[in-house]
Amino acid sequence: MEYLKQNKFSAGDPLPKETELAEYLGVSRNIVREALSRLRMLGIVESKKRKGMILTEPDLLSGVERVLDPDILGDEAMKNLFELRLVLEVGMGDLIFARLKEEDIDKLENIAQREAKDPRTTSLKVRLSYEIEFHSRLYEMSGNETLKRFQQMLLPVFNYMMEVEAKLEKKPEKGNIDHFDLIETLKTGTPTQFRENMREHLTPHYKRL
Amino acid sequence: MEYLKQNKFSAGDPLPKETELAEYLGVSRNIVREALSRLRMLGIVESKKRKGMILTEPDLLSGVERVLDPDILGDEAMKNLFELRLVLEVGMGDLIFARLKEEDIDKLENIAQREAKDPRTTSLKVRLSYEIEFHSRLYEMSGNETLKRFQQMLLPVFNYMMEVEAKLEKKPEKGNIDHFDLIETLKTGTPTQFRENMREHLTPHYKRL
Repeated sequence: MEYLKQNKFSAGDPLPKETELAEYLGVSRNIVREALSRLRMLGIVESKKRKGMILTEPDLLSGVERVLDPDILGDEAMKNLFELRLVLEVGMGDLIFARLKEEDIDKLENIAQREAKDPRTTSLKVRLSYEIEFHSRLYEMSGNETLKRFQQMLLPVFNYMMEVEAKLEKKPEKGNIDHFDLIETLKTGTPTQFRENMREHLTPHYKRL
Repeated sequence: MEYLKQNKFSAGDPLPKETELAEYLGVSRNIVREALSRLRMLGIVESKKRKGMILTEPDLLSGVERVLDPDILGDEAMKNLFELRLVLEVGMGDLIFARLKEEDIDKLENIAQREAKDPRTTSLKVRLSYEIEFHSRLYEMSGNETLKRFQQMLLPVFNYMMEVEAKLEKKPEKGNIDHFDLIETLKTGTPTQFRENMREHLTPHYKRL
């Protein structure tokens, strides 16, 4: 990493060969190979056919994605992530309003209408699948790539929380604000109203803080 | 990873030796060595003296930390991260209120008073250092480990944004809510008021969305 920074490598640049790197850095080829393997893991370099190794725009979240597995993460980490989700969804109102398009509203309405008509929503699993679909769309609408990726990664956390909730004796109550109310807020309200309505919508989860 | 999951390894368990793993998996020792190197990189396994390799509670953010370098990340990624910061700080009001302690208020007041008395705050750099100190404390107060770690990682993004702002011809205006107002909100207000005051405090940044 130091070598790449000092020599001002940037995205797309080819890297020197392993033997050359070993010579520049005064280390064995095995060390170079292990270092390159780690940089590949972090998404900082990639192997291209015929071109050898090149420096890539690193993918900030690729490392997170690989460890974000409820089987491997402990309960504490899962709880932290679930809280983070609550923080993000209440906080992202301004981004959503700044980038709001007519077609986004249509897509949200489509989800809420399918949910309202679905007879299977007595099942927690079915309800949760609509919840995930609706909220995922909001992350999309934020227009922020890091947020969107993060939501994708949080899906296993959602599933984990579903299993936890299914085991609770006292099922979480519903909030006073449903998906139709949130859509109405996006159509005629302000980011402030959206924040407060989203907070209300998520009340069952906030109660367990 | 599949092998570890299928055999229900959990945090603290020692891993089989390289030669044994190679045999179980029917691959060469070099492949096993590279795989272990990657798992170490992701914080899923670690080497312990005398004990060999053990499975650790993976550190969700260690991969992010290593690539979060403004020299390496592009402008778009930095912009996304800066937006994420705005979302988090507006959204984390409920966590802060749920875990608020007297001594946290004292610490915030100490920062705001030092800032108010400091003659060097005509300099953007000095102002920013107080801004970072104050806001970092809020992340601490959220009591959420993932958020705290994330704030630590965002520090290079702050510094980068400072450099960007220093180059702007039109310097960002100050919001109508300062650090003393935010402290007052924590003492006598509600999470809703905190969200709206934080949003107002961050207005100069939101204007550039």
